[in-house]
Amino acid sequence: MDQLSTTFAALADPTRRAILARLASGETSVTELAKPFNMSLPAISKHLKVLERAGLIARGREAQWRPCRLEARPLEEATAWLERYREFWEASYQRLDALLDELKAQEKKRGRKKS
Amino acid sequence: MDQLSTTFAALADPTRRAILARLASGETSVTELAKPFNMSLPAISKHLKVLERAGLIARGREAQWRPCRLEARPLEEATAWLERYREFWEASYQRLDALLDELKAQEKKRGRKKS
Repeated sequence: MDQLSTTFAALADPTRRAILARLASGETSVTELAKPFNMSLPAISKHLKVLERAGLIARGREAQWRPCRLEARPLEEATAWLERYREFWEASYQRLDALLDELKAQEKKRGRKKS
Repeated sequence: MDQLSTTFAALADPTRRAILARLASGETSVTELAKPFNMSLPAISKHLKVLERAGLIARGREAQWRPCRLEARPLEEATAWLERYREFWEASYQRLDALLDELKAQEKKRGRKKS
């Protein structure tokens, strides 16, 4: 799979995104990481493997305590890909604004006719 | 599945990203969309269904010609999520720059010693 697909696939899970969010505040052990999730260590380890293969986390080499840390660089390519569509979602909000303005204007006209 | 996970999962495929890129230049029919991919219409339709369920495309209602068009709004939430990590990948480049500067400085010192 290409890097961009691997990155997006890794992000397509709320637990994995929560792990990245946790690691954004500093490196930590797998046991610490697992705590807020009410998940078994093997289940967490599976998510960590997906993140590690995607290059989004790295594991320390200390034998006892292999801390996980965030590796954010693949997120740059993903953001760059998405940024190309910014003009499209902005345009969609502008169309919505224009529609709401039109509806308000019509409402006002109707209000004047009634009074 | 939550919207953000659905969005990222829909983007985790190069064909689906290429379809969105094509639709960024205007709405088009499924037959037209399928042309550059050398894929069967059912295969393309499957990808379109994933994109439609994720709210990333919409299909026209004309009976004969149901054009597809881009619906970019879910990409905004995805971009906003990723943007929170910008400081981390920027920091990783700064660390790389610092390391390269250090290596260059060492190289220079060695060069002076030799001459």
